[in-house]
Amino acid sequence: MEKAVAQNIYDTPEFFAGYSRLRRSVHGLDGAPEWPAIRAVLPDLAGKRIVDLGCGFGWFARWARTQGAAEVIALDLSENMLARARAETTDPAVQYVLADLECLELPETAFDLAYSSLTFHYIVDFGGLVRTVFRALVPGAHFVFTIEHPIYMAPAHPDWLVGKDGNRVWPVDHYAIEGARTTNWLAKGVVKQHRTIGTTLNTLIGAGFALRHVEEWHPTPKQLAALPALADEVERPMMLLIAAQR
Amino acid sequence: MEKAVAQNIYDTPEFFAGYSRLRRSVHGLDGAPEWPAIRAVLPDLAGKRIVDLGCGFGWFARWARTQGAAEVIALDLSENMLARARAETTDPAVQYVLADLECLELPETAFDLAYSSLTFHYIVDFGGLVRTVFRALVPGAHFVFTIEHPIYMAPAHPDWLVGKDGNRVWPVDHYAIEGARTTNWLAKGVVKQHRTIGTTLNTLIGAGFALRHVEEWHPTPKQLAALPALADEVERPMMLLIAAQR
Repeated sequence: MEKAVAQNIYDTPEFFAGYSRLRRSVHGLDGAPEWPAIRAVLPDLAGKRIVDLGCGFGWFARWARTQGAAEVIALDLSENMLARARAETTDPAVQYVLADLECLELPETAFDLAYSSLTFHYIVDFGGLVRTVFRALVPGAHFVFTIEHPIYMAPAHPDWLVGKDGNRVWPVDHYAIEGARTTNWLAKGVVKQHRTIGTTLNTLIGAGFALRHVEEWHPTPKQLAALPALADEVERPMMLLIAAQR
Repeated sequence: MEKAVAQNIYDTPEFFAGYSRLRRSVHGLDGAPEWPAIRAVLPDLAGKRIVDLGCGFGWFARWARTQGAAEVIALDLSENMLARARAETTDPAVQYVLADLECLELPETAFDLAYSSLTFHYIVDFGGLVRTVFRALVPGAHFVFTIEHPIYMAPAHPDWLVGKDGNRVWPVDHYAIEGARTTNWLAKGVVKQHRTIGTTLNTLIGAGFALRHVEEWHPTPKQLAALPALADEVERPMMLLIAAQR
């Protein structure tokens, strides 16, 4: 199969500038409302060898070291992201590496945890990537990632409509039709890859992973009180959190 | 915990009459478009001891015997359903039993397959039921079921709206708010229990099951050509098919 080359939207100036202003870019892990849910399914990191797939500014890599991780190989497609990550990291046990996850090569049975935050919805060859990750993990190792939820990605027009009660409703269509969705988030023409939850989970199962946790993230009442805009995430999920084990 | 008693909508005359006219009630398994997908994930039934949770008219129980199943215990809440099932079955290895799945008791390690078609979305205490099923299965046994998809169940108004292109869109809202949904399908006031996919899967994992297959059913091109009304199921999934193993 011919390998796709990932669209590198992150290095377009418009997208990078917008992305850099997001809460999660300014405040790091604590600026991401799903972070407590992710943290709850992570294994103890002490002594762990970690690969971070789509590391962005390196927030997770640096945090993992504060938890005792032995080393973190942090991969990203974006030169700009990696430049800022390197500038903010003084830790020889964190290595930032430019990599395209569409044609990733990793050493075999080399890691205890593979982690990825909101990256895989850009990947065309998800099956190939999952098989690569499986081989790169030691038996018993963990694979924890978030991805955009297919309810969020599927629609031709991913934007609220007015429902029969005058409330907001999320217009799902084309759910069973997997493949590219082009949206205008931070920049025009951002291409994402819609897959059903079934396909995502069966790809993991087919590669040999045991599923440990599947969560369609939504805010806690406390988070809602602090950030009322998160009410959107109660109406329809935007993120899917998955924990699996080799 | 106080056990709920299931709403027995099936035995209201209006519902039973409407249900009896459905394609799947007239034509049996082949009248259900999801049947080929279910069949593809069923284990070989030869010699298997099967419990069918919500057996309806007994189509599956009788079919399982044609595949060599050793015995089928077929449970349903509906006296009317069981009466017709018994009238159409002359096979001492199929036993029909009146049972409320909200407070089900089953013998331990007695079955090789637990099967259920479109029943669990009526169940309040899904966790209790899953734990009962787990204990009733032998190690290595299979658990295969369909349930209404939460995308289909979640909305306050589960009916198509007109989207921005003038096409049909399915109005998802309240997705994260689990619990009762009252609809008017075949009869007024049918109460279903909305749960996210995450909750359904984590309940299985938590009970000790290994997930084998998760499918958000949609029609094949051949099925679409034969039954154009199935086009709805491409836009948004109505059914979730899950296969797990003790």
